[in-house]
Amino acid sequence: MSLRVGVDIGGTWVDAAAVEVVAGGHRVVARQSVRSIRGPAGVLGGLRTAYGLLLEELGTGARVAALGIGVPGIVSGGRVTHAVNLGLDGRPLDLAAEAAALTSAPVLVENDVKAAAWGAAHWLRSSGDGHGQDLALLNVGTGLAAGLVLDGVLRRGDRGLAGEIGHLVTDRSGPPCPCGKQGCLELYASGGGLARRWAGSAAELMAAAAAGDPTATGVRDDLVAGLAQAVRILVQTTDVADVVLAGGVVTSTPALQEALLAALRDHGDSGFEQTLAVDERVRWLPEDYPAGSVGAALLPQPQEPVTPTTSPRTGVGTGRPGG
Amino acid sequence: MSLRVGVDIGGTWVDAAAVEVVAGGHRVVARQSVRSIRGPAGVLGGLRTAYGLLLEELGTGARVAALGIGVPGIVSGGRVTHAVNLGLDGRPLDLAAEAAALTSAPVLVENDVKAAAWGAAHWLRSSGDGHGQDLALLNVGTGLAAGLVLDGVLRRGDRGLAGEIGHLVTDRSGPPCPCGKQGCLELYASGGGLARRWAGSAAELMAAAAAGDPTATGVRDDLVAGLAQAVRILVQTTDVADVVLAGGVVTSTPALQEALLAALRDHGDSGFEQTLAVDERVRWLPEDYPAGSVGAALLPQPQEPVTPTTSPRTGVGTGRPGG
Repeated sequence: MSLRVGVDIGGTWVDAAAVEVVAGGHRVVARQSVRSIRGPAGVLGGLRTAYGLLLEELGTGARVAALGIGVPGIVSGGRVTHAVNLGLDGRPLDLAAEAAALTSAPVLVENDVKAAAWGAAHWLRSSGDGHGQDLALLNVGTGLAAGLVLDGVLRRGDRGLAGEIGHLVTDRSGPPCPCGKQGCLELYASGGGLARRWAGSAAELMAAAAAGDPTATGVRDDLVAGLAQAVRILVQTTDVADVVLAGGVVTSTPALQEALLAALRDHGDSGFEQTLAVDERVRWLPEDYPAGSVGAALLPQPQEPVTPTTSPRTGVGTGRPGG
Repeated sequence: MSLRVGVDIGGTWVDAAAVEVVAGGHRVVARQSVRSIRGPAGVLGGLRTAYGLLLEELGTGARVAALGIGVPGIVSGGRVTHAVNLGLDGRPLDLAAEAAALTSAPVLVENDVKAAAWGAAHWLRSSGDGHGQDLALLNVGTGLAAGLVLDGVLRRGDRGLAGEIGHLVTDRSGPPCPCGKQGCLELYASGGGLARRWAGSAAELMAAAAAGDPTATGVRDDLVAGLAQAVRILVQTTDVADVVLAGGVVTSTPALQEALLAALRDHGDSGFEQTLAVDERVRWLPEDYPAGSVGAALLPQPQEPVTPTTSPRTGVGTGRPGG
C-alpha cells in the first residue's frame, strides 16, 4: 500500500494523517495526534513522535510515498519564519531538511492554512457537486488567515503570503494589536481575539448576547462584523466560488453561523450585492475533517500537475498517485 | 499586416487602439478616441464610430484578427449588465452580438478594469525586468475597482466579479453610499468620491492640505487611507508581485503618490509588515499608456494559451499571434 502522509503542526496539537489515493478520490487510513511543545526542539520532537506513531499504526506493509508538513508561519523553500505560535520567532527553521531524516520520500513544507485550503478543496471535491476547484478557506483559529485555491491551483503568492488578511485594519481607532497596528481584523474575528474580550465559549457569548447582556452584545457584533468583513474581502477580491470556514469558534457554534449568514445576506437595495451573493458561497468545514494534515499529505509534488481534474462520473476529485 | 483591435468604452471616452503583435512583444500602431454617449444606442454608436475611425487611420491593407471590447459593468458571455456609468442599468446588452456586425474576426467582451489589468501586464512585461506575470491593477476612476493577473492568467472569478473591492465597507459609521451601504471604500478613494467632497483637483487638495486647510486635510487623509487600504487588501489577499495604480487622480498627482507610499511604509515595529513590503510593490501606470484598449485587443482567444511566456532573452512578453 502506497500512502501519503501529512503532518499539521499547530500551536496546541500536532496532527498526522495517512492518506491513500484511490480511484477518483482519497481515503484517510490512519490518524494520530500529540500535544505540541514550543521551540525548535519541541516542534521537531512533536513531528517525529506523531510521524512515528502513525507509522506504527500503519504497520510494516506501508510505504510512504510523500511527506507533507503544514506549519503556522511564513514558509519559503522548506524554511519556516514568523512561527510565533510555535515559539519559533527567532532564527528560520529548516523544517524540510530536518524532516528528510524521517523518510526517503520527498518532503514538502507549506504554511498550515494553505495546506488546510488544499485539504478543504479535496473535501469539497468529495461532495460530488463539482465544487472544490475554486475556494478560500477562512481559518478562524488563534489568528485569522485564509488559503486560496484558484482554478484548481493552490495560490502561494509572490512571497508565500497570499491569504494573510488577519492584520488588515478594520477600525483605525480600534485597540492596539500585538502586530504594532490598531484595530486589526484578527482582534475581533479570531479565537484569540475573542478570548481576550470574553471569558467563555462562543456559544456562551451568543447566548448572553441574545439574552441582552450589553458586553456580550458588543463583542458578538464585532465578531460577526469582522467575520463578515473577512468573507467579503475574500469574495470581492478573488470572486472564489466557495468560502469554507474552519476553526472551532465558528464550526461548533450554530448561532454564530446563523448570525454571520444574516450579516452577509443584508443586501440593502443593492443589485450588485445580490449579484455577489456572498452568503451563498459560505460552507462550514466539518469539525472531524482533518483538512490540515490531509492537505499537507496531498500537496502537489513538483513533477505533478498542479490542477487535479474532477472525475465527471463520480464528481470526486482524482488524487495524484504517489510516485 | 495582421492586427488586433481593442476598444475601451468608458463613461467619458471611447478609446480604440490597433495593436501589432511583434516578435517578443506588441506595438500600438493606431489610436482613436470619441466622446461617450449614454444609453444602449449611444454606446453602440460610440463603438462603431471609434472602430470606423481606427480602420480609416489604418488604411486598406490592414486585416483585423481579433476585436476586444472593455466595458465598465459585469460581463458574462459577451453580455453586459450593471453598467451604470454607461446608462445601461436596465436590460443586459449583448455587446458581443452587436459588435459581430463590425468584423468577421472573433469578438471578446470583458469588464474594462480586467481588460486594463491585462494591458498593464503587457506594459510591465515590456519593461524587461521579468515583471508582468503577477499583478493587480487598481483603477482609481469614477469608481474604485481592481483587475488581477495571477501567475500569468487574467482572473475573472467564479462570477466575473474578481477585483470588485470598491464597495467593501471601510467605515461602518461612514456616510451613505449610492450602493445602499455606508462607508464604502469607493466613497473615499476614487475620483468620483473625491469630487463629492472637494471642488478641485487632487493636486489642489494636496496643496491645500499641506497649507493646513482643515477640510482639505480631512479629505486627503481619508483619500490616502482609503487608497492604502485598497492596496493592502489586494496584497494581503492575493500576494501579487506588483500593484499598478491607474487613473488620473493618482497618476497625475506626485504629492498624492508620495503620501500613499509613506502610508504604506508605516510598518510600526511589525516584522510581518516589513516582510509584506507593500510599498515596494506599487507602480504607476504611465498616463499615456492605453492599458484598457491594449488589454482588450490582446485578450486571450479561447483557443490560445492563457499564459503568455516571457522571453528570457528580451524579457518582453510574447504576444499571441492573431489567428
